[in-house]
Amino acid sequence: MSGFSDWLAARAATRETAGLTRRLFASDTAGPMIDLAGNDYLGLSRDPRVVAGATKASEAYGAGAGASRLVTGTLSIHDQLEAALASFTGFPSALALSTGYHANLAVVAALADADTLIVSDAHVHASMIDACRLSRGAVQVVPHNDAPAVEHALANRTQPRAIVLIETIYSVLGDAAPVAELAAACARHDALLIADEAHALGVAGPGGRGLLHQADLTGQDHVVATLTLSKSLGSQGGAILASPAIRDHLINTARPFIYDTGLAPAAAGAALAALDVIADEPERVRRVLDVATTLADACEVDVPAGAVLAVPMPGPTEAVAAVAEAASQGVRIGCFRPPSTPDGISRLRLTAHAHLTDPELDRARTVLLSLR
Amino acid sequence: MSGFSDWLAARAATRETAGLTRRLFASDTAGPMIDLAGNDYLGLSRDPRVVAGATKASEAYGAGAGASRLVTGTLSIHDQLEAALASFTGFPSALALSTGYHANLAVVAALADADTLIVSDAHVHASMIDACRLSRGAVQVVPHNDAPAVEHALANRTQPRAIVLIETIYSVLGDAAPVAELAAACARHDALLIADEAHALGVAGPGGRGLLHQADLTGQDHVVATLTLSKSLGSQGGAILASPAIRDHLINTARPFIYDTGLAPAAAGAALAALDVIADEPERVRRVLDVATTLADACEVDVPAGAVLAVPMPGPTEAVAAVAEAASQGVRIGCFRPPSTPDGISRLRLTAHAHLTDPELDRARTVLLSLR
Ligand SMILES: Cc1ncc(COP(=O)(O)O)c(C=O)c1O
Ligand SMILES: Cc1ncc(COP(=O)(O)O)c(C=O)c1O
Repeated sequence: MSGFSDWLAARAATRETAGLTRRLFASDTAGPMIDLAGNDYLGLSRDPRVVAGATKASEAYGAGAGASRLVTGTLSIHDQLEAALASFTGFPSALALSTGYHANLAVVAALADADTLIVSDAHVHASMIDACRLSRGAVQVVPHNDAPAVEHALANRTQPRAIVLIETIYSVLGDAAPVAELAAACARHDALLIADEAHALGVAGPGGRGLLHQADLTGQDHVVATLTLSKSLGSQGGAILASPAIRDHLINTARPFIYDTGLAPAAAGAALAALDVIADEPERVRRVLDVATTLADACEVDVPAGAVLAVPMPGPTEAVAAVAEAASQGVRIGCFRPPSTPDGISRLRLTAHAHLTDPELDRARTVLLSLR
Repeated sequence: MSGFSDWLAARAATRETAGLTRRLFASDTAGPMIDLAGNDYLGLSRDPRVVAGATKASEAYGAGAGASRLVTGTLSIHDQLEAALASFTGFPSALALSTGYHANLAVVAALADADTLIVSDAHVHASMIDACRLSRGAVQVVPHNDAPAVEHALANRTQPRAIVLIETIYSVLGDAAPVAELAAACARHDALLIADEAHALGVAGPGGRGLLHQADLTGQDHVVATLTLSKSLGSQGGAILASPAIRDHLINTARPFIYDTGLAPAAAGAALAALDVIADEPERVRRVLDVATTLADACEVDVPAGAVLAVPMPGPTEAVAAVAEAASQGVRIGCFRPPSTPDGISRLRLTAHAHLTDPELDRARTVLLSLR
């Protein structure tokens, strides 16, 4: 094993020298902190109703789905979840998967064959980049949020089909995509828009229904959304929202769907309960944006489109130091350093949470101001 | 959207004409059936102790992990699960992921770079095939269970590093890999053996500890296992078992781990409870093999290595007819038809379940005999 162990050791040494070694720690053992780092934007993961949704589903359906969805792993609770996701967002149909990552892999790999051009925004999530590699399509990366560049790529393609990959609110910078413009360009050039609403669901658009809903695009056959159940819904899992024709195609051809065990009942039950809470308590969605506004003000950055704030820093050392300083003051924030930033700029990454109390928010503000 | 809708419609028509359209149905709405199709081999998904494991974990940690593992999504229950998986199987360390599919994608993509030859058994699971596409390695597919072919590929490679991909018990044919021989070939040629124990955990090897444990390979640095928590453990999730050096490498470089929300607490809690049940009640593991023996006898095939039986059929029509006939008699079995079989041969696929009662097993036997 010398070759491999040498290689592993060399890679580890390189990371260590660059100060880039990442280690896992159990966040629940770190003592109470004000969380401005996680993606449980609405605080629903620990909401008693959401936990009860998980519990009841495990009791009724078991701890696991027991098989892939096409064998015996489809349960009524999957049908219920898919109906609820479609009705909440306004899409005609939904397909639930085990993770948001699976959702992106599945939709791109199944819809892009060798006759398909994939036009991908430069800032899309790792799961969409991996999805491109899995698919047979040719990939063209376009500058971030550049609708004319997308249109140009679509107009000049040689492939009969094309798909465009975006996030409606971007995971790293927290900015919104020009969805109406992009959807119109796709319509003009007979292309499919595949938009990841991971960071928009529950946070942006009317009542947290997302930016595609806001732009009245959820009923259009050429617009597809992917979602994760693991952020504002406080659970685990993913979903693809699309026309029934696309859903049927995915069921029949999407390998990360077909060859994977169905989503655990607890995860489906929790997400279902979370959708109910969001529908019943739209003030949670408004609160997350208010909190985001306060945080943006404290950090002197623009108010974000959703819960994610990115604060540029002079360099990776400064970013890491700021994270440590905030932690020492009881506030957990994150940071992105190269190679995890799309443009080489180190940033603090903060996320707004609806369940912060006013005193917690004040405290967070004070700590953020002290970092300046 | 005409281009895409035409393409989708043409693909749907082709499937329909070939009789290959797949549809989802909720298995819990089909009335009581004897299940010889799912992968909940030990019946643990509905075991009250396993359900309680899920429930307690949701209550203690929330319905979701709330973030990726490297941000705030590592929870003590992940540490506990990883320790329990390592100690059960005998590996030095474990890393939990959201699905077994993620585990295979992560380990291969992180360990195979452009200087790595990937030698892949012809029958490996879709997730390993997708993993090869995601990685930067060159892929050489070798005939099924052909250790000399593996050795030849390793010996004649031009790349400094190599990994070998196998399943210890194959998902489709249910046969076992010659793990000792393959591990020895890997050791001789300084290659890593990556073995998917999805269908062996809880079913094969001493007390269900898998075939790598049985062959005394779990302490070898050049042997890596992937697992799923979704079959005999009755939950959802996956894991990679390996040396600490490999685990550290994965934490730092495996995209399907890094950019994915941590495994839901309920899934971790259920898997932890299932491991306890298996350790406490080894008779469950023996029972699944007894049931498999009875089923194999009824189908006139060899006794399988684990819970999965494959029964060759004259063609796809006969396979589908047999599935329908069994269902009409209250027994659910599955089938594999091209293109889902690795060799073009249509087969019935049956899985043994430890929790079948003797009368249910008798009934299943009678129905299977009637299909001959
Ligand atoms: C934009 C985006 N898409 C997809 C995912 C993957 O979702 P999941 O964690 O459910 O796999 C994430 C992060 O986790 C994300 O930020
Ligand atoms: C051999 C094998 N590996 C991996 C997987 C994927 O595991 P999971 O369903 O947990 O994603 C499966 C089936 O689901 C499998 O049969």
